[in-house]
Amino acid sequence: MNNKEIRFASRPTGLPTPENFEFVDTDAPQPDEGEVLIKTIFISVDPYLRGRMREGKSYVPPFVIGQVIESGVVGEVVESKSPDFKPGDVVMGMLGWKLYNVAAANQLRKVVPGLPPSAALGVLGITGLTAYFGLLDIGQPKSGETVVVSGAAGAVGMSVCQIAKIKGCRVVGIAGSDEKNLYLRDELGVDATVNYKSEDVFEALKRSCPKGIDVYFDNVGGPVSDAALRLLNNGARIPLCGQISMYCSDQPDIGLRPQPLLLVKSAMMKGFIITGYMPRFAEGITQLAQWFMTGQLKHRETIVDGFENTPRAFIGLFSGENIGKQVVRVV
Amino acid sequence: MNNKEIRFASRPTGLPTPENFEFVDTDAPQPDEGEVLIKTIFISVDPYLRGRMREGKSYVPPFVIGQVIESGVVGEVVESKSPDFKPGDVVMGMLGWKLYNVAAANQLRKVVPGLPPSAALGVLGITGLTAYFGLLDIGQPKSGETVVVSGAAGAVGMSVCQIAKIKGCRVVGIAGSDEKNLYLRDELGVDATVNYKSEDVFEALKRSCPKGIDVYFDNVGGPVSDAALRLLNNGARIPLCGQISMYCSDQPDIGLRPQPLLLVKSAMMKGFIITGYMPRFAEGITQLAQWFMTGQLKHRETIVDGFENTPRAFIGLFSGENIGKQVVRVV
Repeated sequence: MNNKEIRFASRPTGLPTPENFEFVDTDAPQPDEGEVLIKTIFISVDPYLRGRMREGKSYVPPFVIGQVIESGVVGEVVESKSPDFKPGDVVMGMLGWKLYNVAAANQLRKVVPGLPPSAALGVLGITGLTAYFGLLDIGQPKSGETVVVSGAAGAVGMSVCQIAKIKGCRVVGIAGSDEKNLYLRDELGVDATVNYKSEDVFEALKRSCPKGIDVYFDNVGGPVSDAALRLLNNGARIPLCGQISMYCSDQPDIGLRPQPLLLVKSAMMKGFIITGYMPRFAEGITQLAQWFMTGQLKHRETIVDGFENTPRAFIGLFSGENIGKQVVRVV
Repeated sequence: MNNKEIRFASRPTGLPTPENFEFVDTDAPQPDEGEVLIKTIFISVDPYLRGRMREGKSYVPPFVIGQVIESGVVGEVVESKSPDFKPGDVVMGMLGWKLYNVAAANQLRKVVPGLPPSAALGVLGITGLTAYFGLLDIGQPKSGETVVVSGAAGAVGMSVCQIAKIKGCRVVGIAGSDEKNLYLRDELGVDATVNYKSEDVFEALKRSCPKGIDVYFDNVGGPVSDAALRLLNNGARIPLCGQISMYCSDQPDIGLRPQPLLLVKSAMMKGFIITGYMPRFAEGITQLAQWFMTGQLKHRETIVDGFENTPRAFIGLFSGENIGKQVVRVV
């Protein structure tokens, strides 16, 4: 059986390009005892993967040149040497960018039947958990407070906006197109939006947040964040979830130091890595699935068809091409 | 009875200068019912006062041009129309830079007899409480961890270093002279020091913190902090206590944005204002006094004599002239 895989060919400088990826034809692997052969259906492409393409330590080990890229994958079991799975099961795991993966049974979990399988890569997976714990555990929003979300139309941001609405907050989303902002307001009930590409972010936020900002959920960093940080209320909380505007830079991030602003407002800023919440994943998924099934938490994806388009879908994240979760559909 | 007072004459741009202050001769005020007349003994000069000299809102209201400057003062009661105080009592309060102040009895507290009265302005006052709550509540140092303190030879920094040692940490202090650093090592038991004026701070910290930094207690901000933030461990905590290197600037603070560093280390940075801990002041003072009396927490002051030297003592804070708490002795 033929397999195809996408290997990490070279480290990007700045924006990743197609040349950083190499397509290789191989033979499909065979499962050993306790293993499962999975045919890929959906591949998750995520901004944080850019961090793994950098040399040197980060919170996840860097990709090695020549290795197969890995991310969240949903697939169908085609052969099983584990009692836990049978052919036809739809499973999710951190797997290679391949048409077929072999994985140990304990690295996989079944996708909940009756829910869209790709949601396991998004709102009912790591993406949703990231929004859930970042907002609720670090941001601690209270009813009536103002929550500002950057990267609001991205996969995490969209869930953050909705969870903040569920918690009774005024929610202001920052995104990079009028189409995205229209979606946030009309479909997700976001109270106000800012288009960071066409508006003065500081002035627009000032208008949209007449009572200041209590929680700034930061997915982007850079000048957009500088503007938000100038509008913090006393005791504001800033979950640092991503810094996508900086991921493609190899230079130190020079800009507005937030320390003086945090100091005078007794504000708190905290980075987090979702794997740190692993002991509470079950709690998070249960709550997210409940909101999802009652329609309070909506799901939106940008789907690109074709395994060969996986690198392009990944690269597109950095120019904001996606609304919601970006996935690649392989079959 | 003649009085002298120091008024706020003009807003400084950059470093404060003697011209920002005006000495005025007046008559000593008379206490009304419930008030007390106090003869000044010690005046506390503190970096945060620079913030009040700026126009616009901060966490304390700005000084108005023409008003008497206010800060912590220790004095002796010379006349009392309150049953709570009698002549000869030594008291502490937030009072004007005057030879004689009148204050309501409920704005004053008695200095604990048997302890040096000026300590009520330092290690057994707001300074000590700032170190205590900033380090223990936000920094949460654990035994064996590495705590780095900037402005380590200042009033707050010196207490932070000692409390961190009491808690069993490796303590690294950053200060601006070899004399200060010698004092930190030899007298306060600090494990290692960095002279930010003569050393490459990043390289020196790297050598002094072979296991990285778990708590960075920040009194100074600016490039010194940039260096420390590059050495954070996973889960590091950064109490933001002061940003003295930036207090005299009216420009936005441009430099290394710490967000990417906080993100990958799941680190937390939090500003605080000591008045937010007021409900816990009694706990803090009790503990500080106990450490003080057992000799675990030492006290050091730089004392300038003469009321007329108050502005100069204040200005000297910004060039790091003081070791420990800077006070002015009036009589």
